[in-house]
Amino acid sequence: MRNFLSVNQLNSKEIFSIIEAAERFRNKQLSIDKQVFAANLFFEPSTRTKMSFIVAQKKLGIEVLDFHSEASSVLKGETLYDTARTFESIGANVLVIRHGDDTWYDELIHGLQVPIINAGAGKGGHPTQCMLDLATIYQEYGYFNGLKVVIAGDIKHSRVARSNAQALKKLGANVYLSAAPGFDDPLLDFPYLSMDEAAEICDVVMLLRIQHERHEAIYRDSCYLETFGLTRDREKRMKDRAIILHPAPINRGIEIDTSLVECKRSRIFKQMENGVYVRMAIIMKLLHEWGIINDSIEKRNKTYAI
Amino acid sequence: MRNFLSVNQLNSKEIFSIIEAAERFRNKQLSIDKQVFAANLFFEPSTRTKMSFIVAQKKLGIEVLDFHSEASSVLKGETLYDTARTFESIGANVLVIRHGDDTWYDELIHGLQVPIINAGAGKGGHPTQCMLDLATIYQEYGYFNGLKVVIAGDIKHSRVARSNAQALKKLGANVYLSAAPGFDDPLLDFPYLSMDEAAEICDVVMLLRIQHERHEAIYRDSCYLETFGLTRDREKRMKDRAIILHPAPINRGIEIDTSLVECKRSRIFKQMENGVYVRMAIIMKLLHEWGIINDSIEKRNKTYAI
Amino acid sequence: MRNFLSVNQLNSKEIFSIIEAAERFRNKQLSIDKQVFAANLFFEPSTRTKMSFIVAQKKLGIEVLDFHSEASSVLKGETLYDTARTFESIGANVLVIRHGDDTWYDELIHGLQVPIINAGAGKGGHPTQCMLDLATIYQEYGYFNGLKVVIAGDIKHSRVARSNAQALKKLGANVYLSAAPGFDDPLLDFPYLSMDEAAEICDVVMLLRIQHERHEAIYRDSCYLETFGLTRDREKRMKDRAIILHPAPINRGIEIDTSLVECKRSRIFKQMENGVYVRMAIIMKLLHEWGIINDSIEKRNKTYAI
Repeated sequence: MRNFLSVNQLNSKEIFSIIEAAERFRNKQLSIDKQVFAANLFFEPSTRTKMSFIVAQKKLGIEVLDFHSEASSVLKGETLYDTARTFESIGANVLVIRHGDDTWYDELIHGLQVPIINAGAGKGGHPTQCMLDLATIYQEYGYFNGLKVVIAGDIKHSRVARSNAQALKKLGANVYLSAAPGFDDPLLDFPYLSMDEAAEICDVVMLLRIQHERHEAIYRDSCYLETFGLTRDREKRMKDRAIILHPAPINRGIEIDTSLVECKRSRIFKQMENGVYVRMAIIMKLLHEWGIINDSIEKRNKTYAI
Repeated sequence: MRNFLSVNQLNSKEIFSIIEAAERFRNKQLSIDKQVFAANLFFEPSTRTKMSFIVAQKKLGIEVLDFHSEASSVLKGETLYDTARTFESIGANVLVIRHGDDTWYDELIHGLQVPIINAGAGKGGHPTQCMLDLATIYQEYGYFNGLKVVIAGDIKHSRVARSNAQALKKLGANVYLSAAPGFDDPLLDFPYLSMDEAAEICDVVMLLRIQHERHEAIYRDSCYLETFGLTRDREKRMKDRAIILHPAPINRGIEIDTSLVECKRSRIFKQMENGVYVRMAIIMKLLHEWGIINDSIEKRNKTYAI
Repeated sequence: MRNFLSVNQLNSKEIFSIIEAAERFRNKQLSIDKQVFAANLFFEPSTRTKMSFIVAQKKLGIEVLDFHSEASSVLKGETLYDTARTFESIGANVLVIRHGDDTWYDELIHGLQVPIINAGAGKGGHPTQCMLDLATIYQEYGYFNGLKVVIAGDIKHSRVARSNAQALKKLGANVYLSAAPGFDDPLLDFPYLSMDEAAEICDVVMLLRIQHERHEAIYRDSCYLETFGLTRDREKRMKDRAIILHPAPINRGIEIDTSLVECKRSRIFKQMENGVYVRMAIIMKLLHEWGIINDSIEKRNKTYAI
């Protein structure tokens, strides 16, 4: 793994290796004992993902370079490649990038001499989100084989639906989709269920966020929740151990009834916590792979009490 | 003290305890020897308060998560509660929040498992500013009892006037107000003085900032300083030991003659310095209270030479 | 050197001293062993310069205060002086400032008790950029005496052209200019060359950035590169050891053919790397000069493996 660009590039063994490394970070801190710099280049708004990467980096003892595209040379027309090369030149050892283009990394991977992590690529993918979803399911069940997972919501415009569906299938889960008309994606070859059906048979209900910036009409339609979202009534009919996931930010009362956001089945905030550990695991794997840090660090590591 | 939301919630003993802890930080550094994260969520512009919190956190050895609302999921309609829970989930041990709503913390204090510090709440209060004002007065006089303090300026729209007045009264000071017509607040039960009277009899002249964003007409009126502000002439008639306070940012030539900003009586930049120590004291008290750090740290602490 | 405001204020010995200190930082890390705060106040967009300063500060073990003018009290009309004094009051030990005014530092140097570094002053100067250009030339040739250097592009609106030309002349180089009509500066007394001539005779081709925000017409004119920029053809006719410099951000295909940006002669990304070392050198010199750190630190310093 030279860069972390897509979950599709990973085989099952590599996915499990990241999940297990994340699990170790949950239980034990590890701080790199040399000065390493990570640059976070976010060209689109983000709270969760960016802050999660920053916490992951700081927990690893990595110095954070926080780039604000709104106050930068990008305003002066600089290409993404030149911006990335700039950060490499001034000392960044790893780049974390979110950009609106679906395949922004294509122009970077051959020119740069530092690892790149995809923190979001237009509609093209959001692989660290996918990994944290997988880690949260694995933490719950300990396996994927035969698990029934529904991905529900705006499948068509989601950057996590496709990669989650494919990764879960690769790991042996039975994947279903559920979407309002216009939100379905004919290119994805998985069976569709109504939310009523999905709630009743699935072990994992993975809700997507309605991009109401794009779908103002639907957002204002109070029937959306009743017909396509997770209502209190549907939650009651879920299987005993079944859990609810959502990548957030949540549109309370649209995809999910507001009272369910922190219900017993919800793993929404647990997902965020797991995101930090998953990102620590990915960063460490890349730094090892590129020889920026070495294995002996693990032996000498300081542990924090936190 | 589970959260730091309002000075009204504190009794005199608690206020003195914070002032004294701040005084100790002035003379001696103390660095926490485990990894603690503070998240600063500022939904309104701020230089002084936010940077003061950041310096306080860094002096304590705390990792800072710096949130920019303009590049965040708030743009996507996320609630304050969900944003705060996100930061708790990814590892924040204390949240410092400024928000335009007067009582934003009401919806947070029951759901969150980390301490919250109010760094400004609409017109509702700005209690760390109040504490640094009190600490600056106490540093000067060593007592509050019988001190004559005037709060002068836009009383009505100020978020510090009310809490300062009430806290000073609780501590035994005699509080006066001075305001141009329209800037007085009939809900505050303190005697009003003209600026001429106030300058002559008070030990502390506490100026407020004219929110010229709101009062363009007054701001442009060059008579404001002459009639309602602190002129050089009025400063000359102040008592020997009397001091001038201002929370800044200063409108030079409006509330105060520009030549007085750094005059001998001015404690304006001293207030800013004290703000760092006061915030260190408040953060440490909350971290102790919640068991995030323990008292033994004080014994083992590293001292910095700075 | 009490502040670092202009290269004109430095004599040759001082320039060489900074270049040599930068060279030492290239080979050996040095971390200050007390808590020192640097505040970076950038009132204009910047990626490279700001991030370069941040990396320099973090490599020195300095705490960084990162100021965002777009979310600050400057919106409330605060003066630059009051903002700077605020950062001094809350604990900044050195201020790095970029501001659109050509001589913003004039109002600061007498009132502040901390060193100031000029990170850009309108059209007035950008001395750390000048220093990194000089360091890159020196790294290449080991001397300046008799070197032929052309500065090519928008001389008139550049904040580096004038200071670079004067500094290079002071160090013994032969300086030429090359500019499209309207981009020449009659106040600069150096001989002008066409780009054809310049490419053939010079040891260093120092390209400037076209401020296309200001010159939309030229920017869109595809003939600019052919007539006034560095084409592949001109590059082929350059002297064997001759090098290409550019301060970036680069307008690919305007000042320079896109294929030359990373050609063998290009030192564009090397300049960025050198910028970090030069800024480390300048910060350390000022901290020494003001007694904020002392020489004994150099003896006790920790070395990082990076």
